[in-house]
Amino acid sequence: MRHTETTGAGEVRLENSFWHEKQELVRREVIPYQQRALEDGIDGAEPSRCLENFRKAAAALEARRAGGKTPVYPADKWHYDDENSEPGAFKGWVFQDSDLYKWIEAACRSLQNEPDEELQISVDEAVRLICAAAEDDGYINTLFTINDPAARFTNLRDFHELYCFGHLAEAAAQHFKATGSRELLDAACAFADLICREFGENGKAGYDGHPIAEEALLELYELTRRGHYLEQAALFINRRGTRPYYFDAERGESTPDGETKYEYNQAHLPVREQREAKGHAVRAVYLYTAMAHLAALTRDGELFAACRALFDDITQKKMYITGGIGSKKEGEAFTYAYDLPNSTAYAESCAAVGMVLFARRMAQAEHDSKYFDAAERCLYNCVLSGMAQDGKSFFYTNPLEAIPKTLALDEHRSHIKSTRQKWFDCACCPPNIARLISGIGEYFFLQENGDIFVELYDCCRARLESADIEMSGDYAKSGEISLNIKMKKPFRLALRIPGWCDDFSFSRKNAFIKRGYAYFGITESCTISARFETRVKLMRCNPAVRENAGLAAVCRGPFVFCLEEADNGANLHMLRLDKHPRFDFDGEAITARGYREEFSGSALYAEYREPRRRAVKLRFVPYYKWANRGEGEMRVFVRL
Amino acid sequence: MRHTETTGAGEVRLENSFWHEKQELVRREVIPYQQRALEDGIDGAEPSRCLENFRKAAAALEARRAGGKTPVYPADKWHYDDENSEPGAFKGWVFQDSDLYKWIEAACRSLQNEPDEELQISVDEAVRLICAAAEDDGYINTLFTINDPAARFTNLRDFHELYCFGHLAEAAAQHFKATGSRELLDAACAFADLICREFGENGKAGYDGHPIAEEALLELYELTRRGHYLEQAALFINRRGTRPYYFDAERGESTPDGETKYEYNQAHLPVREQREAKGHAVRAVYLYTAMAHLAALTRDGELFAACRALFDDITQKKMYITGGIGSKKEGEAFTYAYDLPNSTAYAESCAAVGMVLFARRMAQAEHDSKYFDAAERCLYNCVLSGMAQDGKSFFYTNPLEAIPKTLALDEHRSHIKSTRQKWFDCACCPPNIARLISGIGEYFFLQENGDIFVELYDCCRARLESADIEMSGDYAKSGEISLNIKMKKPFRLALRIPGWCDDFSFSRKNAFIKRGYAYFGITESCTISARFETRVKLMRCNPAVRENAGLAAVCRGPFVFCLEEADNGANLHMLRLDKHPRFDFDGEAITARGYREEFSGSALYAEYREPRRRAVKLRFVPYYKWANRGEGEMRVFVRL
Repeated sequence: MRHTETTGAGEVRLENSFWHEKQELVRREVIPYQQRALEDGIDGAEPSRCLENFRKAAAALEARRAGGKTPVYPADKWHYDDENSEPGAFKGWVFQDSDLYKWIEAACRSLQNEPDEELQISVDEAVRLICAAAEDDGYINTLFTINDPAARFTNLRDFHELYCFGHLAEAAAQHFKATGSRELLDAACAFADLICREFGENGKAGYDGHPIAEEALLELYELTRRGHYLEQAALFINRRGTRPYYFDAERGESTPDGETKYEYNQAHLPVREQREAKGHAVRAVYLYTAMAHLAALTRDGELFAACRALFDDITQKKMYITGGIGSKKEGEAFTYAYDLPNSTAYAESCAAVGMVLFARRMAQAEHDSKYFDAAERCLYNCVLSGMAQDGKSFFYTNPLEAIPKTLALDEHRSHIKSTRQKWFDCACCPPNIARLISGIGEYFFLQENGDIFVELYDCCRARLESADIEMSGDYAKSGEISLNIKMKKPFRLALRIPGWCDDFSFSRKNAFIKRGYAYFGITESCTISARFETRVKLMRCNPAVRENAGLAAVCRGPFVFCLEEADNGANLHMLRLDKHPRFDFDGEAITARGYREEFSGSALYAEYREPRRRAVKLRFVPYYKWANRGEGEMRVFVRL
Repeated sequence: MRHTETTGAGEVRLENSFWHEKQELVRREVIPYQQRALEDGIDGAEPSRCLENFRKAAAALEARRAGGKTPVYPADKWHYDDENSEPGAFKGWVFQDSDLYKWIEAACRSLQNEPDEELQISVDEAVRLICAAAEDDGYINTLFTINDPAARFTNLRDFHELYCFGHLAEAAAQHFKATGSRELLDAACAFADLICREFGENGKAGYDGHPIAEEALLELYELTRRGHYLEQAALFINRRGTRPYYFDAERGESTPDGETKYEYNQAHLPVREQREAKGHAVRAVYLYTAMAHLAALTRDGELFAACRALFDDITQKKMYITGGIGSKKEGEAFTYAYDLPNSTAYAESCAAVGMVLFARRMAQAEHDSKYFDAAERCLYNCVLSGMAQDGKSFFYTNPLEAIPKTLALDEHRSHIKSTRQKWFDCACCPPNIARLISGIGEYFFLQENGDIFVELYDCCRARLESADIEMSGDYAKSGEISLNIKMKKPFRLALRIPGWCDDFSFSRKNAFIKRGYAYFGITESCTISARFETRVKLMRCNPAVRENAGLAAVCRGPFVFCLEEADNGANLHMLRLDKHPRFDFDGEAITARGYREEFSGSALYAEYREPRRRAVKLRFVPYYKWANRGEGEMRVFVRL
């Protein structure tokens, strides 16, 4: 096992390219919109109360430091609405603080790509507010600081304190990288130090109900090289799921053998014994990300074996073709192998984001193209689907089939929307997409002892240890990419051969190919071009995916395509594709001959006769672009 | 509109026939088994406590009549288990009393077919026990008599008092018909009289959360000709769904406009305004049964128009091909038009039973074969599927596709079993099937002014007003039937032409055909034979049933057939039927050529190539016989 290094965002600058365009959307639309949301300035949206909570917390601390007493409010629920809580109390979800942290992270990642004085001023104000809400011992969480300081850390399963810490630490790391200021980083480290004291080797044996503190501590460790952060992350990870359950202990309960109630939190088994992805999908992949990261950092083969099994379980049995994971709404969770229903899919945007994080950590530990193949599947499909083409609205869930008129009628589809929403009460997905896209440059290259692994392809300039690389070409559309390499010292260059491609060539011969990478020895500055054939492919599922028997999806390059009502009319389930289709791609959409089946009569049941077949030209658009032209049906898997 | 008369069970005796065999199963297996269950004598089954409740109620009454006081227990829940209630209190579901009534009804219907001294003694004992539990004013309900007499009739929405009365009255009517004894009938009438006082024109404007009292009162009216029962049924029916809602009033709540919370109880709209079947499917069809019955008895065209719309809505948009209705488990309810998922179907056995009751009342009001076509669809498929071939186990839900290994893993399928159960905690379905099958003779003929409508076909002897008829032949298998008619006076004979049949002939020419009936003038004793061609048919759904696009079901005569793993191996979704199949029927099963698709590799997604097609002979068995040969996959709709 290895631990290759990722680049910082600042080392890779995207330009005039597919992903740069998305970063610009995030910079120009998402980050300012989210800022207004945090300030409760969006008409028609429920106020976030997030900044208000920080101000209340700072005021309470000031009052207490001045020797005053502040009222105690209940801190016993997941959500605190205006109606049922005192005006002075905390408002919103228990994890409301993380909205601000994720915004800061996205903003600071964006600032590393593109300076913006006004944005930086806003970020610095937010940072000051957070620091003002920090208790003397480093603790930061507005729910408990405002409502009931004595109740902190009494319900790790539900109350997201370590989760909020995790997002704070990740924001702080990016704030430091973007500005050089240690202000937020110091606050995050002080909180981290408190956590290490509270939950260290001799402290409480807890871990959070929603993982992310683990990964955040590892990132803090890599930034600060303070060993106790690594140790604390390892403690959190290795304690998880051991008996007696901490979540039982903290509430004086006990769990009979065989009960699976902590699967939701991935705390049903010690992590090293986990082999199947279970429970809440976002929590799961956040945990697995940290497990893979820790395994790589500590060369822990046993832990990595669990990560590999979990990765394979997801990608070989539980991932939609779009990269969506977590197929059911109950618990936003993984289900069982090959259970991938199209029209009831949950496939939360955040889970696809988390899957990219997990895949990256796996790729750092082991050179196998399958990791970034999965990341690419998520990025170009389910992640991007989460955001409208204009960056102004978002999907929380990403189904593979949508029939708008049924959604309001059907409990099993009530989580699915056929138009993106401006914002969400639980606003996790938009900022998660924003922080991932803003920082996507970090995912392009991995470096190991000077060798460079190119994992994602798009136009960019990278300043790496062994070379400066200028990548050009139009990978997303044509599969062509060219690397202009200014060598600083000799190294091996490894190009990931995308999993969707089975016909490729390189301008330089004699590539050595291993586990999905083409390796080239670089001994002088040069240009290497790659052509990954983007032939349109018709993809089928493993037959164990029962719902998709007889169906196939149209794919090209990294993109999955779909039928939309706007192009093909309603009742997409009556459309069939020619068995041996000839596909045309016009740069935007794929067309192919097919037909629409038509039966006559309105009977519920009628004797089967060959239907009339009306020849039609089917038009497929990239999945991530669906629902950008008004409300209508959508379908990824089409009948053959 | 009309009101044709049904026959009593005693007027039609089935013999050596399809349905007689089922009646014998009920007589020899179901009724004795249920008797043991009521007496808590089944090992491994949760005790019913039903008779125990009646004994406790009788004892409490005796104590109170002797001037003593009895303890008050809570009467505020749907279910009372051993653990959380006092030993002396009521046990079981609020509707537990109805288990005994339904058993008595089934037993008394069976006694009308086949005398059985031992059974009659048991019935008479039960009747004495019920009468002993009757309060002085006629009220009978063990929950309230035991736990809290003052709380009676305070929560009609939830507590099933009028529902239990309904089953009591239906049992009493059959007890009277079977034995000539008025003992139970008098008790039921005394209770009915109390209800008429309590909820009459000048009483409380209530109606039950679970309809059946309405239909029971109409049946009591027809038996006793006491007009106030008819009036009370009309009051219950016409009040339902009017504003302000009684269910709000009785609990001091109010429902904002537009809320649909009483759809579950079919009390969201006045019944005359209801056009779409909504809510709990059993409650719905029990209500519609009474509405149709009342409409016919009172020649109420407006009410009947609502019934017709509801019947058409169900049969044209919401009924499985097996006759199953109520497609979702949430609320055991109807959903929206054409939402008929196969593998998550609820399709409760009781709902199919209720649909037969509804269809019969419709047919009494209007001569249209569509009514008994629907009844027949239910009877030969979903109703019979509810009971094992040996009469010893039962299905509560009746899916159209079962994949046993997924059931335990999947919330959306947790209501589905792949093997029939011995008994149920909520034991509504087995006795409901038992009472319907025992009384199936009542459904064969309708009589109107001497004219005879033959609605169901099977070997039987009937003593009717205008003729004695001996029906012979093997309708279920061959579609052939012969009526030997001993005329008493001239009449018109109308034979229903089954909806599944499009090729038929009669031994007598010149039939007059109207709305699905062949009419013959009978002026002398004679024999008329009918041949309804039972060609195997491949049936498709209306294309609006999205899930079944590209699929079809194999049917023959009144039976829907299915594939089972026992005959065809696992992974039934990989089997395809020839587009132009040649079917063979060997008297038991249908075979046809098809093939099994096979793909190689274990990848979750792979490029589509034509699968290997392994030729196989597909074997289809009648749907109602599924799951009688061990656990395995089942599928009604097969790929073409």
